[in-house]
Amino acid sequence: MTKKPAEISKDGSFKRQTNQFTTPFGNNSNELPIEAGRYRLIWSAACPWAHRAVIVRRILGLEDAISLGTVSPTRPRLDRVDWEFSLDSEGVDPVLGAQYMSELYQNTDSDYSGRPTVPAMVEVESKKVVNNDYFTLTNSFETVWKPHHKKEAPDLYPEHLREDIDSLNEVIFHEINNGVYKCGFARSQESYETAYETLFARLDDFEQRLSTQRFLHGDFITDSDVRLYSTLVRFDAAYYTAFNTNRNLIREYEHMWGYVRDLYQTAGFGDTTDFDAIKRHYHLSITISPDKAEPTILPKGPDVAVWDSAHHREELSGKKEMFFYS
Amino acid sequence: MTKKPAEISKDGSFKRQTNQFTTPFGNNSNELPIEAGRYRLIWSAACPWAHRAVIVRRILGLEDAISLGTVSPTRPRLDRVDWEFSLDSEGVDPVLGAQYMSELYQNTDSDYSGRPTVPAMVEVESKKVVNNDYFTLTNSFETVWKPHHKKEAPDLYPEHLREDIDSLNEVIFHEINNGVYKCGFARSQESYETAYETLFARLDDFEQRLSTQRFLHGDFITDSDVRLYSTLVRFDAAYYTAFNTNRNLIREYEHMWGYVRDLYQTAGFGDTTDFDAIKRHYHLSITISPDKAEPTILPKGPDVAVWDSAHHREELSGKKEMFFYS
Repeated sequence: MTKKPAEISKDGSFKRQTNQFTTPFGNNSNELPIEAGRYRLIWSAACPWAHRAVIVRRILGLEDAISLGTVSPTRPRLDRVDWEFSLDSEGVDPVLGAQYMSELYQNTDSDYSGRPTVPAMVEVESKKVVNNDYFTLTNSFETVWKPHHKKEAPDLYPEHLREDIDSLNEVIFHEINNGVYKCGFARSQESYETAYETLFARLDDFEQRLSTQRFLHGDFITDSDVRLYSTLVRFDAAYYTAFNTNRNLIREYEHMWGYVRDLYQTAGFGDTTDFDAIKRHYHLSITISPDKAEPTILPKGPDVAVWDSAHHREELSGKKEMFFYS
Repeated sequence: MTKKPAEISKDGSFKRQTNQFTTPFGNNSNELPIEAGRYRLIWSAACPWAHRAVIVRRILGLEDAISLGTVSPTRPRLDRVDWEFSLDSEGVDPVLGAQYMSELYQNTDSDYSGRPTVPAMVEVESKKVVNNDYFTLTNSFETVWKPHHKKEAPDLYPEHLREDIDSLNEVIFHEINNGVYKCGFARSQESYETAYETLFARLDDFEQRLSTQRFLHGDFITDSDVRLYSTLVRFDAAYYTAFNTNRNLIREYEHMWGYVRDLYQTAGFGDTTDFDAIKRHYHLSITISPDKAEPTILPKGPDVAVWDSAHHREELSGKKEMFFYS
């Protein structure tokens, strides 16, 4: 077993580790300073938690202010869980010089014993992970990082909706984003089935919600849509088979399938989605399947060409080109 | 590895072992005598090769002539591959007294070293496996066993179609019945992908064929339909996830999904189909997933209630109640 037993409860259910580096970005002295060029965002194209930060970074045009480093979607075969910069030509991140994600965590805390996770905001000068709080990171990008947004960047977190967005994001986190992991990492039939029922009940609820409105909060894309997208886009290619979430494929939902293609075809979503990385991670990575000794075959399906097919969701809002709050 | 390396070729592809007990049933002195009560058919409800023999036995009304013993869908944890009579109250087949299938094979050949497979026709008196030739077994039931058919039993193998049936059965065997195993048991990416392409090309071909006719050979069910059914009915619940045959679910094919439900809703098919056994075998049996150390979670999906839904296939033939050759 390479997975930390600490993340499996007595009843066999999966309890995700809490993030340890949660000092917020902001303009107060006890917060992380907002400064272009100061931080490097590390992600894996496979990871849904990191993907959402990269989507928001691109939609808001934070690419010049926050650089991006990429770890491989497949885990190295080590006696610890880690992410590796093996996609870089020298096998190290060209800015931070690290080979493994764990090095950057240990720069911050030499006793760090949790899983070294992405997304992580790393201070370039000190090479320390200063924030790995995926739950609030996109909200930071949307608010305190506003001075560095591109011109006419949309508003993914409009003030009048923040209460609704925050409240829905809690549900999306527990029942969907982490819900699929609760199915896939369960080590008892009962905890798996509980997570499965919760997950599909919520997907059914969203299917209903999305039958009458284009996005989760109405006619415009918000932070909640980014969070839901990051799980839905991985569902058919990864979770359905690798995490036993096999009641329905997302492409079998009439409205949600149109919804997720609508997002996929929007700049920031599809262009940051790497199905090959997603499939390699969930089907070949030893940490995802600790009970598989030799995961060697990469499933060939499903066909991803269908993601570019027409969805007609614009008819729900009547706003084909205006789907962001400005 | 519990799977016999002999069944994996150098290129990583799966080569199914040949059957060793292939003396045919018949009325000649060198054939196995046709006699009611002389043999017991052993099957597992999980196994597609055995399932088709049980479907044909029921459709033809051979139940009084040939008794049925059932091994468990999940394999015992032994240092050999075997099937176990653990569903029986005493843990042994009540007629043959065997605990494991291998005992019956060893009664025939004490040096038998192949996998002890089902279906197997066992001579009750000698407790010997006399025939395990799944490829010809249904044809024997349909022809030389005719004297023991029920009154007005249909003809699944009409003489004027035998050449067509035999020729299609070869294709169904190599590309579909065994094709899914070639995908699931492949140990190289290339051999997996070759089998996957062949499988889905043939399914697409059958989808086309079944768009204009109710069954594979026209308006009536034949032996070919039984053979195709035994794989299709397992596809969404087992192969799609466990064997990486994940281009499409069968329920995503417009015509084939109606076709397989049409069969399911016909006496002999659905009433011999045990989805729970199928799921347990393909998702929990160690021999199916030799690279999984602890397959402990049984996937909850897919929903099997949809198998009873209306299919309207009778409109293709105009013969709602007459779908067998008599």
